[in-house]
Amino acid sequence: MTDLNPADGILAHDLDRAHVFHSWSAQAALNPFVIAGGSGSTIWDYDGKHYLDFSSQLVNTNIGHQHPAVVNAIKAQADLLTTVAPAHGNLARGEAAKRILGLAGPRFGKVFFTNGGADANENAIRMARLTTGRDKVLSTYRSYHGNTGAAVVATGDWRRVPNEFARGHVHFFGPFSYRTEFWSDSPEQESERALRHLERVIQSEGPSSIAVILLETIPGTAGVLVPPPGYLEGVRALADRYDIVLIFDEVMCGFGRTGEWFAWQGSAVAESPVIPDLITFAKGVNSGYVPVGGVIISESIANAFEHEVFPGGLTYSGHPLAMASIVGALDAMESEGIVRNAASVGAEHIGPGLAALAEKHPMIGEVRGVGVFWALDLVDDPATRAPISTAVIGQLKKELKTRGLLPFAADNRIHVVPPCIVTPDEVAQALDIYDEAFTAVTA
Amino acid sequence: MTDLNPADGILAHDLDRAHVFHSWSAQAALNPFVIAGGSGSTIWDYDGKHYLDFSSQLVNTNIGHQHPAVVNAIKAQADLLTTVAPAHGNLARGEAAKRILGLAGPRFGKVFFTNGGADANENAIRMARLTTGRDKVLSTYRSYHGNTGAAVVATGDWRRVPNEFARGHVHFFGPFSYRTEFWSDSPEQESERALRHLERVIQSEGPSSIAVILLETIPGTAGVLVPPPGYLEGVRALADRYDIVLIFDEVMCGFGRTGEWFAWQGSAVAESPVIPDLITFAKGVNSGYVPVGGVIISESIANAFEHEVFPGGLTYSGHPLAMASIVGALDAMESEGIVRNAASVGAEHIGPGLAALAEKHPMIGEVRGVGVFWALDLVDDPATRAPISTAVIGQLKKELKTRGLLPFAADNRIHVVPPCIVTPDEVAQALDIYDEAFTAVTA
Repeated sequence: MTDLNPADGILAHDLDRAHVFHSWSAQAALNPFVIAGGSGSTIWDYDGKHYLDFSSQLVNTNIGHQHPAVVNAIKAQADLLTTVAPAHGNLARGEAAKRILGLAGPRFGKVFFTNGGADANENAIRMARLTTGRDKVLSTYRSYHGNTGAAVVATGDWRRVPNEFARGHVHFFGPFSYRTEFWSDSPEQESERALRHLERVIQSEGPSSIAVILLETIPGTAGVLVPPPGYLEGVRALADRYDIVLIFDEVMCGFGRTGEWFAWQGSAVAESPVIPDLITFAKGVNSGYVPVGGVIISESIANAFEHEVFPGGLTYSGHPLAMASIVGALDAMESEGIVRNAASVGAEHIGPGLAALAEKHPMIGEVRGVGVFWALDLVDDPATRAPISTAVIGQLKKELKTRGLLPFAADNRIHVVPPCIVTPDEVAQALDIYDEAFTAVTA
Repeated sequence: MTDLNPADGILAHDLDRAHVFHSWSAQAALNPFVIAGGSGSTIWDYDGKHYLDFSSQLVNTNIGHQHPAVVNAIKAQADLLTTVAPAHGNLARGEAAKRILGLAGPRFGKVFFTNGGADANENAIRMARLTTGRDKVLSTYRSYHGNTGAAVVATGDWRRVPNEFARGHVHFFGPFSYRTEFWSDSPEQESERALRHLERVIQSEGPSSIAVILLETIPGTAGVLVPPPGYLEGVRALADRYDIVLIFDEVMCGFGRTGEWFAWQGSAVAESPVIPDLITFAKGVNSGYVPVGGVIISESIANAFEHEVFPGGLTYSGHPLAMASIVGALDAMESEGIVRNAASVGAEHIGPGLAALAEKHPMIGEVRGVGVFWALDLVDDPATRAPISTAVIGQLKKELKTRGLLPFAADNRIHVVPPCIVTPDEVAQALDIYDEAFTAVTA
């Protein structure tokens, strides 16, 4: 921790309010929290107050803040060569692609690098449309796939509505037992009915018009919706039956978040891995230390562009600084067992701890999750499952922050999403803070 | 220059061919040129061969390769804090926004940061649509505005055609005296007729349906099309008359490329500055050392989102590492007079030198440009102006590279786009190489 000067915090705040336009907000009401620095699971402000970062910022700092292996990889590449055009070759880029493909397995042939998750989905959709010759993209209402023109209309939640500038996107309902759209009374029935619904949408839209089924393997911002048994297997079967490309969006759930390298590899979502045709990623691949994302492409789709031109690109595709940070992050995650840590801390500490909290606080209607990827679905009344008000969420955020925990809130939920390196001790501290905050807002 | 091992070049090439999917290409034919390092206007390969980089990679390394001020800014920020969520405040972000607004002038109020140029245009279009309540976006056929779903259909060139997934985009013809669409016989007449054409498109589409006129101030990849006298003034007047938001895309032409901080500030494009409502940027703002872009927002459009939510965002908006690189780059460009250098080297050396080349080589049909932003429009026959073949362009690229110059080619053109720091001596070397290459392919 470097020397802190509270005046710098005030300066940062004032410069921000004077000059910076913020996302997803009305600007007048903003009062951004200024972060001075961070290390591991902790961040601090310019007054020296420390916070447990149980948001991982935007669920991206999987390796924690300022991991020296990644910082050093960035600095070494900065000294060597920061940028080249995507057409030229670069050693860091090949090394990054090799590692990512090694984790995804032999069915995958190439990696296309982008700047983030949105343009990863853009390019994955483009590949699928061009290889199938079909137009439509099916995705769920409870989903977020990015905010550029095609990705945002593939998005299912409210952020799609003011941005529907594209065509060919059809939204359907995914499974969500706790708030079922299918009048189900078990996860098995939810899965079966959600698959029946999806097949009816496919048949009604016309299978020959559908290029893509695009799913977050575990929908994230929508509420950490772990799919019920058999659902992903069923979607894969439908994609095969109707010759539709299956894209798993692993932007949030990939690279350790679920205690697996990819969420689709884990037993939490399917008995044996359901392999998609394209995987989109960003965030956890380098913990967001440098902006980057990409598409992991199956051998067969990659081969389709051996002699056909792929009409997509961007200036910073395969950017050396970003590539070096991927190599640094993945090697450290591998050698330090960071993904395994996420799995065991999740199973042994976070999951049981949150379940105990839910026993104590009736406001917690459901606890869902795996690894370091959890949501508390908060309700006014456990019987009706009516979502708790925005005002209570606001109070909760304030109580958590006061007690030294940086939370992640979405709609009526608190997402418990620390870095993959989080320790049992940090989880215990955090659980105490959540407990106190729930007690405070209940009072 | 660090020690070079030719084996690393072979490794980089092999890893690339095995694992990396490239943009805008059929994959089978690729043979990427591997870059080992760079400094200033020069790059080198793993065999130690040096090349003058007259491509600036993708016209982005305005400050040259590996400028120590930018490299050090990146390394210092990497040690401090690489990433925070966009909602939180960060000192580097406020400092970057302040500098950018200082260069754009008092009409502008806020900066919204993105990952690159495409999503800068996405968000600028979004702002314009939401503040006008109108839908349509007018842009020229000869344009490139990025490759995400809405930006790509705003794009005019062939890269739009396989990607038309959005609606409300109308394309018109911009001015281009050398290859006029308006049967003009002078730049003045070209300007007048192009404006008449644009006004007829506006009237025919219905002014009340049009949110945006989106123009690259100087269309770049389309051929460095410096607008003729009066054109931008006329477009501004039409935008005012019909209450349409005017966006200047300065992704390629901004931040020094034309010898001005912004192309719209220079006398090459208008007698006195024509001020847009939104400016989009990327590339030159930090020379692409870290992926970043953004929108510079007029006071009035920024104010429209004081109490209305802006429904756009991205995880890496205002990313600290990118922000620090902007501060480092802009401060160095300012203190070292790098933008002035681009202006004077362009006016005194590149412009006259290319004009002399055109005198000597009839293949050069027209020389266009300003600052360090030039195109040679190559023709089979000066009388018919028929574009030269792809095969000749391929030969030229090879001849240039063999002689130690990394070229930028697009369609039937060679773009002469060195970094803004290029010296008269380097320009003289490059002019000799271009001369020899033209002689070689003519033989």
